[in-house]
Amino acid sequence: MLRNQYDTDITTFSPQGRIHQIEYASEAVKQGSAVVGARSGTHAVLACVKRSVSDLASHQRKIFELDTHVGVAVSGIIADARVLSKFMRNECLQHRFAYESAVPVGRLVRHVADYCQRCTQRASKRPFGVGLLVAGVDELGPHLFETCPSGDEYELWAMALGARSQSAKTYLERHLEEVKQAKRDELIRLALAALRETFAAVRDAELTEHNCMVAVVGIEEPFRVYEDAQVAGFLEAIRPAPEPEGGSATGAPSASEERMEDTS
Amino acid sequence: MLRNQYDTDITTFSPQGRIHQIEYASEAVKQGSAVVGARSGTHAVLACVKRSVSDLASHQRKIFELDTHVGVAVSGIIADARVLSKFMRNECLQHRFAYESAVPVGRLVRHVADYCQRCTQRASKRPFGVGLLVAGVDELGPHLFETCPSGDEYELWAMALGARSQSAKTYLERHLEEVKQAKRDELIRLALAALRETFAAVRDAELTEHNCMVAVVGIEEPFRVYEDAQVAGFLEAIRPAPEPEGGSATGAPSASEERMEDTS
Amino acid sequence: MLRNQYDTDITTFSPQGRIHQIEYASEAVKQGSAVVGARSGTHAVLACVKRSVSDLASHQRKIFELDTHVGVAVSGIIADARVLSKFMRNECLQHRFAYESAVPVGRLVRHVADYCQRCTQRASKRPFGVGLLVAGVDELGPHLFETCPSGDEYELWAMALGARSQSAKTYLERHLEEVKQAKRDELIRLALAALRETFAAVRDAELTEHNCMVAVVGIEEPFRVYEDAQVAGFLEAIRPAPEPEGGSATGAPSASEERMEDTS
Amino acid sequence: MLRNQYDTDITTFSPQGRIHQIEYASEAVKQGSAVVGARSGTHAVLACVKRSVSDLASHQRKIFELDTHVGVAVSGIIADARVLSKFMRNECLQHRFAYESAVPVGRLVRHVADYCQRCTQRASKRPFGVGLLVAGVDELGPHLFETCPSGDEYELWAMALGARSQSAKTYLERHLEEVKQAKRDELIRLALAALRETFAAVRDAELTEHNCMVAVVGIEEPFRVYEDAQVAGFLEAIRPAPEPEGGSATGAPSASEERMEDTS
Amino acid sequence: MLRNQYDTDITTFSPQGRIHQIEYASEAVKQGSAVVGARSGTHAVLACVKRSVSDLASHQRKIFELDTHVGVAVSGIIADARVLSKFMRNECLQHRFAYESAVPVGRLVRHVADYCQRCTQRASKRPFGVGLLVAGVDELGPHLFETCPSGDEYELWAMALGARSQSAKTYLERHLEEVKQAKRDELIRLALAALRETFAAVRDAELTEHNCMVAVVGIEEPFRVYEDAQVAGFLEAIRPAPEPEGGSATGAPSASEERMEDTS
Amino acid sequence: MLRNQYDTDITTFSPQGRIHQIEYASEAVKQGSAVVGARSGTHAVLACVKRSVSDLASHQRKIFELDTHVGVAVSGIIADARVLSKFMRNECLQHRFAYESAVPVGRLVRHVADYCQRCTQRASKRPFGVGLLVAGVDELGPHLFETCPSGDEYELWAMALGARSQSAKTYLERHLEEVKQAKRDELIRLALAALRETFAAVRDAELTEHNCMVAVVGIEEPFRVYEDAQVAGFLEAIRPAPEPEGGSATGAPSASEERMEDTS
Amino acid sequence: MLRNQYDTDITTFSPQGRIHQIEYASEAVKQGSAVVGARSGTHAVLACVKRSVSDLASHQRKIFELDTHVGVAVSGIIADARVLSKFMRNECLQHRFAYESAVPVGRLVRHVADYCQRCTQRASKRPFGVGLLVAGVDELGPHLFETCPSGDEYELWAMALGARSQSAKTYLERHLEEVKQAKRDELIRLALAALRETFAAVRDAELTEHNCMVAVVGIEEPFRVYEDAQVAGFLEAIRPAPEPEGGSATGAPSASEERMEDTS
Repeated sequence: MLRNQYDTDITTFSPQGRIHQIEYASEAVKQGSAVVGARSGTHAVLACVKRSVSDLASHQRKIFELDTHVGVAVSGIIADARVLSKFMRNECLQHRFAYESAVPVGRLVRHVADYCQRCTQRASKRPFGVGLLVAGVDELGPHLFETCPSGDEYELWAMALGARSQSAKTYLERHLEEVKQAKRDELIRLALAALRETFAAVRDAELTEHNCMVAVVGIEEPFRVYEDAQVAGFLEAIRPAPEPEGGSATGAPSASEERMEDTS
Repeated sequence: MLRNQYDTDITTFSPQGRIHQIEYASEAVKQGSAVVGARSGTHAVLACVKRSVSDLASHQRKIFELDTHVGVAVSGIIADARVLSKFMRNECLQHRFAYESAVPVGRLVRHVADYCQRCTQRASKRPFGVGLLVAGVDELGPHLFETCPSGDEYELWAMALGARSQSAKTYLERHLEEVKQAKRDELIRLALAALRETFAAVRDAELTEHNCMVAVVGIEEPFRVYEDAQVAGFLEAIRPAPEPEGGSATGAPSASEERMEDTS
Repeated sequence: MLRNQYDTDITTFSPQGRIHQIEYASEAVKQGSAVVGARSGTHAVLACVKRSVSDLASHQRKIFELDTHVGVAVSGIIADARVLSKFMRNECLQHRFAYESAVPVGRLVRHVADYCQRCTQRASKRPFGVGLLVAGVDELGPHLFETCPSGDEYELWAMALGARSQSAKTYLERHLEEVKQAKRDELIRLALAALRETFAAVRDAELTEHNCMVAVVGIEEPFRVYEDAQVAGFLEAIRPAPEPEGGSATGAPSASEERMEDTS
Repeated sequence: MLRNQYDTDITTFSPQGRIHQIEYASEAVKQGSAVVGARSGTHAVLACVKRSVSDLASHQRKIFELDTHVGVAVSGIIADARVLSKFMRNECLQHRFAYESAVPVGRLVRHVADYCQRCTQRASKRPFGVGLLVAGVDELGPHLFETCPSGDEYELWAMALGARSQSAKTYLERHLEEVKQAKRDELIRLALAALRETFAAVRDAELTEHNCMVAVVGIEEPFRVYEDAQVAGFLEAIRPAPEPEGGSATGAPSASEERMEDTS
Repeated sequence: MLRNQYDTDITTFSPQGRIHQIEYASEAVKQGSAVVGARSGTHAVLACVKRSVSDLASHQRKIFELDTHVGVAVSGIIADARVLSKFMRNECLQHRFAYESAVPVGRLVRHVADYCQRCTQRASKRPFGVGLLVAGVDELGPHLFETCPSGDEYELWAMALGARSQSAKTYLERHLEEVKQAKRDELIRLALAALRETFAAVRDAELTEHNCMVAVVGIEEPFRVYEDAQVAGFLEAIRPAPEPEGGSATGAPSASEERMEDTS
Repeated sequence: MLRNQYDTDITTFSPQGRIHQIEYASEAVKQGSAVVGARSGTHAVLACVKRSVSDLASHQRKIFELDTHVGVAVSGIIADARVLSKFMRNECLQHRFAYESAVPVGRLVRHVADYCQRCTQRASKRPFGVGLLVAGVDELGPHLFETCPSGDEYELWAMALGARSQSAKTYLERHLEEVKQAKRDELIRLALAALRETFAAVRDAELTEHNCMVAVVGIEEPFRVYEDAQVAGFLEAIRPAPEPEGGSATGAPSASEERMEDTS
Repeated sequence: MLRNQYDTDITTFSPQGRIHQIEYASEAVKQGSAVVGARSGTHAVLACVKRSVSDLASHQRKIFELDTHVGVAVSGIIADARVLSKFMRNECLQHRFAYESAVPVGRLVRHVADYCQRCTQRASKRPFGVGLLVAGVDELGPHLFETCPSGDEYELWAMALGARSQSAKTYLERHLEEVKQAKRDELIRLALAALRETFAAVRDAELTEHNCMVAVVGIEEPFRVYEDAQVAGFLEAIRPAPEPEGGSATGAPSASEERMEDTS
């Protein structure tokens, strides 16, 4: 329809200074099932909706451990995500080998982001169609990063990627102060509550222990993934949330409505 | 007709974030003759309709042993499948050489899936037009995996690929609980029964010992292929199934209708 | 006229999952002069119509010995066939050098088929526009294989390639049982009779000792090519065949009409 | 709309002797948030508006230290900027390793500009979509350089890049003499005041300690970045500037209006 | 006019299974000046019309010695022919070096034909726009081969290439039996007579000792080129040929009309 | 508008035997600010208008020393010029290293011109969009060369490149004899006077010590650049030139009008 | 206008068997200023019109010495000619180094012609847009060769290339016998007289000692170039030629009209 001569070449700027292929790859990120990340002063949490490709398949995991202190949640083309995960695992190993210590999270993220940038510049390949939320802990405390197909990377307090992630982002923005000060379990509950928001617009869909997983990493607590029964307790805690959100987000989680969602 | 400017370049995203060539390659998978896989707690089974290119040719085998503990059933471009099988056989050998043990099935599948992903990203080649069902057993028990032209891979309880595989998938979904708890021979019969479903819509076509083959691998049982006379017994067991399916699938195989199909 | 945007790129799938260049290369195979192959329990036979490019040229041979136990008949672009023959001869030599034994026929065929597949996938070159019938004998007995531009390969009892090969295939299908049980000379006569069918629709054309050649390989009998006077005896045996075929093919070659053709 | 045949090929001149891709990449530079640089006889200063991609993310830093004597402010595609920064850091390190001294600023800038030029000439890649302001001090005193996607580089007294940078440039031109003779803190205030000009046209936007950062390097003073509270004092100093500029810029900063902005 | 989408890509099959570039290169062969080759049981002869590019240039030689036992006549793009001649000379040398014997003519021709085939398949280059007639003698006696831009090669008794070569071919076909049994000098006269036929349709053109050359190679007679005065005798022998050909070609050269041409 | 199919491919001739990309690159040369070169029997002089990209930037230098005996003035894409300058500096160094003497100017120019030619022929890259005036002295005396994007190079007595250089060229042509016989300072004044001509058509523009620079190299005098105050004296000498040129150029600089310009 | 789909690809044949790019490159040869070559039994001579790009430049030399026994005159893209000259000089050096003798002229020409052919075939680059006249002497006596962009090469008695060379060719054809038998100085005069013909159609243009140069090489006489005053004597000898040519060319130069031109 609206044919655009600049959008098929991965190494061409449009007259507006845009690289269309990178923007289209970002669409692939938006079509993955939702992932959520959040970070407080002591912990970083990842949560995702498992991808269900068929009743015959087990749900697809979208959170992966990279090292004992860092893990990643992915949204988009899973095969591309696997390549980037492999790249990051290798970086972790090489750093441990060379320096006998865990790789700082920011450095790890910068390396994988550079790897993405090279695709569309030096290597003239298609961009990786995947977004990453990297959660980890290093000497500077817990971190949460996002990387994009463009090779951009951002340090964040919280973020959601994938299908209907806007609802989750809105939730996180309203509860940002809670997130920053949350303790371990509260942070998990906030992440799951945000993830649940992505189900709001879908009829009959519900967040259950079978279709989601969470992962936590904290100071003195290695990266660990929780699934199924392990996640049921957290879901129970955010259960009584039948009413739509209407109140104003307050810094303290004592307000009644928020409490119904967050049960902190 | 509907010319689409994004679908001829294997390294280009469409504005919707899709890579058309990968989707077209998946069409090649759908045009292969049907293959079925199923896994219980103790065994994994593959079954396929042999491809008959001519009355002058023997039927084409579509199940291959990769190692004593793992094999593969393929659907799509057979020449591509041969390349991937060779790649996997080599991986098995190298793992045995390096570690003196059988390669874990999941790792083998991840390697071949990465190999597929590289085609359309780093190497800028056409995707492999073939889908694989990999069945094997390792220290964690039996496994069944599917890989796609995109480089995606899924762990499954059961799956069917190729022409008219939807009927087989429907059958497997309705008998999923039986599959999970099936013993060796019952699992074979379930796979064959699912495969038979792909013949339902084709007039005069029938599943016989001449046009199908099965393979089994189990804990303590190496991968083995059964053909012709060897498969006749299993076919006999699912023979009395003239009525169309109408009943509800129950967990136990004692219900009369299911029994007519499954004769467990 | 019917411009098809997918058919000029050798590494592009059409939305139907087809690779047009491979199909077009198959057209080149169909335009070669006819070749026929047949295999019984003890022998494998190749027969071809020699290509006559000019009255000034001797007829072109289209059957080549690869090793003492295996040979090939080709149809399509002869220059491409020469490249593949050279490749196979080299494989035979290398196998003899490494293992001090003749290469198994199936392995040889798989190697050359993989070589064809690489053209259109890894190497992004045009496919080889040639079809091969490979006849050989190894420890498992006689074999007949066909390879295609796609890199597919089939094991066969009998097959015909090239111009008007459909008539020969029809003949072979009707005499398949005879082929399977034929003794050496009978197998040659069946192959020549099938080859003669490709002349049926061409006015004034006739199969003579000057325009055809046959090759035989058997258990305990090395691959050998027969031409001119050597082939005259076989042609004589199938001479009295003025009537068109009308009868039904029977398992035994004693039926009168078949006898007129096959003179077994 | 106005299709231009010369603008998609990065290695093609238009009939007017222009290389369009370089000009389009310059558009990407203009879309970054504003950065400002200024240099006096003793110091060089960089200031930027931090990029805010989301309420959930901390603001993006756009000023980076390269070595103790030099740093860079970037506008445009941040992932590209990271590549160039990495390149420059490496140059600094190599120079220190080889010569045991800090790399002269001009030489560093020439190297990175050559690296940009190679993109569109020898390497036939897309240009880097980023502009750099490099501030540093070497034996010849303080320096300020700008590099462009074309590979051009300019030595400057002051410059502004990015969104609405024209207002900042106008401000700097009017206060050029002040800039040249400014002392350390005055130079910082001039840079921030120029940066504030880029907010003038945006309703409700304001330069605060949260959305900007400055960096200073001087003779005998290593490169250092100031953020948040550290920058508040400088902002306070340029606060009383409610009236639009209307007066003429004079060489001496004693004029009343200028004083209201610059408070030198 | 009749735009054909398949004919500009040298590695693309048309839907009819043709490679147009090879066919177009064959047109270049047809535009060269005529060359003729003929072989009897004891000798092989090449004859050509020298190419006259200008009155200022000596006529271009189109027959080249490759080794003492083999030579080549070329038609088409002479620069391409030179490359192929060089290739063949090198093959001759290498064979002598490795085996201390002359390279068999058929093997030499196969090598150069493979070299041509690689152009359009593995190397994706334009085909060589030249046709070769290779005449030589080895242990099996005299040989005459033709190679085409496609990489095809034919063994021949006689052949003509280049402009108006059809008349020469017709002549050769009618005198084929004479050619086969010709003695040395008679064979030369037959080749020259055929060459003269290409002049028949051109007004005022005539075959003289200045515009043609011949080469002979025989059992026990090394390859040798004859020009100018050396060729005059042979031309004299075929001089009295004013009448158009009307008689029937007979096996024996004693018939009057043929005699007028052949003077054997 | 006038789409020309030959002008986007840098390695394609048009039917008129032209390579458009080289011509378009020459347009880039014409858009640079003016440079002038002149040579007498004892000295060679370069003069340029410094490029002013902004009031905030110092003027861009466009004359560079390459070695003690040779320098270059450039017009066009400065980033490209930097690459060529670097290439030439390296040539100078290598020559000194290998031969322990200064590189002859002509050889240096030939090398850089060959480097330009390779761009559009062997390397298939865009041409360098820059023109060079190389002034130097070697054993044969002073030299002035011009190189073009095509890779052509000319030895000259005088030349002007860049914006409005035609006026300067006209001036130089009229004073060619004076140039040839000029002494050092007179030659500088002639070059500056020619440069001033490029300002004639621009309202309010004037040649001052701030916007131009000159360089001199002579027998026994190393290459040296003069700027700002150093150039003021020469400008003063050519100051009284308010009248338009109307007289005829004479060999001797004693004619009144010329004197007003040249004040020799 | 007359778009031709075959003429932009340097490696594509048109349906007529032509390679358009080579023909277009030949147009570039025709646009160079004229060069003339002539050879007698004892000497070979080159003559050219020096290219005048500007009044400010010395005339461009177009004749170059390659070795003591051989030189070249060029017409077309001078930058390309320089590359080929360099190639040939290197060939001369390598031959002297390897064989301690001068390279035979024909071999040298064949090498450079092969180099040209590779451009458009193996290397897929644009052809060299230059024609060469190579004059030299070796053990077989004097030689004159022409090479074309196609890679063709011809041995000649005389030839003219470049602008209006047709007039010179016509002159040379009429005086061919004189050329063949000319002594040294007479040969030079004939070449200059032919060169003068290219001025005939241009008003006010005249062949003077300033705009032409000649070079001679002979048996026992090394290659030497004559310019300016050195060439004046020869020009003087052909001066009295105001009348147009009308007479018939005779073998002996004693005829009056020819004498007026040739003054032999």
